[in-house]
Amino acid sequence: MNYPNKISKNKPWRLEVSHSNRGMNLEEMLNQSNNYYKEKDIALIFKKPTPIGIVDVAYENKKKIIKKAYFKEQSTLDYNGIYRGKYIDFDAKECLSKTAFPLNNIHEHQTEHIRGVIRHGGIAFLIIMMNGLIYLLDGQDYLWYIDNNERKSIAYSYIQEKGLVIKEGYLPRLDYLKTIDNKYFKGE
Amino acid sequence: MNYPNKISKNKPWRLEVSHSNRGMNLEEMLNQSNNYYKEKDIALIFKKPTPIGIVDVAYENKKKIIKKAYFKEQSTLDYNGIYRGKYIDFDAKECLSKTAFPLNNIHEHQTEHIRGVIRHGGIAFLIIMMNGLIYLLDGQDYLWYIDNNERKSIAYSYIQEKGLVIKEGYLPRLDYLKTIDNKYFKGE
Repeated sequence: MNYPNKISKNKPWRLEVSHSNRGMNLEEMLNQSNNYYKEKDIALIFKKPTPIGIVDVAYENKKKIIKKAYFKEQSTLDYNGIYRGKYIDFDAKECLSKTAFPLNNIHEHQTEHIRGVIRHGGIAFLIIMMNGLIYLLDGQDYLWYIDNNERKSIAYSYIQEKGLVIKEGYLPRLDYLKTIDNKYFKGE
Repeated sequence: MNYPNKISKNKPWRLEVSHSNRGMNLEEMLNQSNNYYKEKDIALIFKKPTPIGIVDVAYENKKKIIKKAYFKEQSTLDYNGIYRGKYIDFDAKECLSKTAFPLNNIHEHQTEHIRGVIRHGGIAFLIIMMNGLIYLLDGQDYLWYIDNNERKSIAYSYIQEKGLVIKEGYLPRLDYLKTIDNKYFKGE
């Protein structure tokens, strides 16, 4: 009879996980992880708000309300911030295809943004969820593929070869900064 | 008779300036400057989109349209990016008062964000337009004032003393990165 309570006292994350972590999509996992990094003062990384074009506003109870707006494309990547003194910039995509990552997921100005971030000394990458795994694909490996292939998608075999698998956990749900440590801060 | 044409050929910025730069507000000046920095590959700094909470969407001609939304507060500062390998984060405010900058312009989580950016090795500051001048106030000077004063505003004399005046020009309209060079990269 006491079994569930004992578990929750000794390992409180067990219950929490079973309630709140189940069925998170990639964006939710990253938001939870970024909140965790912020709370623990490990990094300051945020998702940028979705850009919109406002067509019409009105006032309701003296509060300004948007009555009509449309979605615009992000000209940068969705996430950026600072970690270990370095500028971090990335995008996250869930890929339904099992064989290839379609390149129309990343717009041309976003590819140029990745190129620019690396040129200016920042860290840029993609997080790709595919075939049940979550990969970190370094911006330079992404650009190499773009620059050396005519294909409209990245073969899964390339993502398997170059990508680093991000381990899923409890808190943070996706410890992608550990992957960043291994990739970019080795030996520091 | 040929006078205006000659000017526009020899110094095309003359005419451009008189048309497009007159009457820019602070945000427009910064957007123009950030575009210039991007075009010249000097820095990658962007204004974050305004965060909104979407209440209702609909489809018009197969396109998703926002039918109702409200404005949310930015939990970070409005502008961030990378310059000379460093993480840059700032906010820009036009101040109507001639004697003091009201601190309700900067929310508490934004003040904590400034603290965090500096702790993690980034550069954080405020750009304040006041009494016809545009000042760059370093994040540490801002925090010092907050931490050592009970007042609900920053006295103009403090901004004059600690702030650095950003020179207005043509292209970029506000060369605030030159001010950053002098303040943070001296001797490099």
